[in-house]
Amino acid sequence: MSKLLQDAVSEFSKLPGVGRRTALRLAMHLLKMDVAAVEQMAGSIARFRRDVRHCEVCNNLSDEARCPICQNPERDRSTICVVEQVGDLMSIENTRQYKGLYHVLGGVISPMQGVGPSDLKIDMLIDKVASGTVREVILAISTSVEGETTLFYIMNRLKAFPTVKVSTIARGIGFGDELEYVDELTITHALLNRREVEHP
Amino acid sequence: MSKLLQDAVSEFSKLPGVGRRTALRLAMHLLKMDVAAVEQMAGSIARFRRDVRHCEVCNNLSDEARCPICQNPERDRSTICVVEQVGDLMSIENTRQYKGLYHVLGGVISPMQGVGPSDLKIDMLIDKVASGTVREVILAISTSVEGETTLFYIMNRLKAFPTVKVSTIARGIGFGDELEYVDELTITHALLNRREVEHP
Repeated sequence: MSKLLQDAVSEFSKLPGVGRRTALRLAMHLLKMDVAAVEQMAGSIARFRRDVRHCEVCNNLSDEARCPICQNPERDRSTICVVEQVGDLMSIENTRQYKGLYHVLGGVISPMQGVGPSDLKIDMLIDKVASGTVREVILAISTSVEGETTLFYIMNRLKAFPTVKVSTIARGIGFGDELEYVDELTITHALLNRREVEHP
Repeated sequence: MSKLLQDAVSEFSKLPGVGRRTALRLAMHLLKMDVAAVEQMAGSIARFRRDVRHCEVCNNLSDEARCPICQNPERDRSTICVVEQVGDLMSIENTRQYKGLYHVLGGVISPMQGVGPSDLKIDMLIDKVASGTVREVILAISTSVEGETTLFYIMNRLKAFPTVKVSTIARGIGFGDELEYVDELTITHALLNRREVEHP
């Protein structure tokens, strides 16, 4: 077998969710692309890993010391939305509804996987809140067991700042979700937090 | 959003079966790898596309003008196994049961996708057979409609060489397959081609 192919396949296999069969399919696909396009792909991958860094303010991925969001003078610096990871930040940004800043924890507390509070950017968050410019902290953390643990840990730490408003994002039935397939905990939550509608 | 991340995600998205969500996951995974490992991955991808070529004898992927199989003096040059693509060749090689040479067509005849006989390496195969050294051609082509079309087209062309033995690989129930889930055509074929067992 071609050594070049073997190398490409074994490198693709290092990616999560890519087995040898998929890796081979990806390699074969490269042959259908222009040489220049593949070189651009390879260049982007290497450059991303080498040059991207974490924003010194919010831990978001960034090309510079501070990310575009933290640099943007139009963002509301008194509100911080805490998320687990960069992907969550991107999902919220895509809604174009949020004008505050973020804080990326870099994961959730998970004793099973050996992730404790000190492995996450929690102290960095508390320091920011302690500096006095923050008026509200929105905790946009997932409802997994680890997420809830992280949520309670952070809420506990934030008790030291009684003037800072702390909120969590609303739980309920998603748009387009069919009630039949929604789990009981979510339905219970959605029922308990029902909203009265005004009569027409 | 980081331009470096954006580039990496949009490049990963060009791979088949990789949407933006998966691309983001792949990019995030790169951050967990060493810089050197990612550079090695990027290098392998670019090098593979730039330097790999098709064996001038059998159309297999190769680092040199002729692939290792065609160069190997121990392989039986009188038998040629015809396959659709390099992945099929690799699957057969993995069995270590086949000692002849290969011929990689590069696809199957598919009028729907605009692939005609001239788009595949069929003439190259016929020329090889016409040269007189070939005694058997094994057609290891898939049983899809396109595969069968290709099979009959090649068998027709090979009629010009009545001394050359032409065979197709056996169809039947795979090892580990549960009869209950095997399609009817395969079961019919397996029944019609049943083999008598010797009494102990």
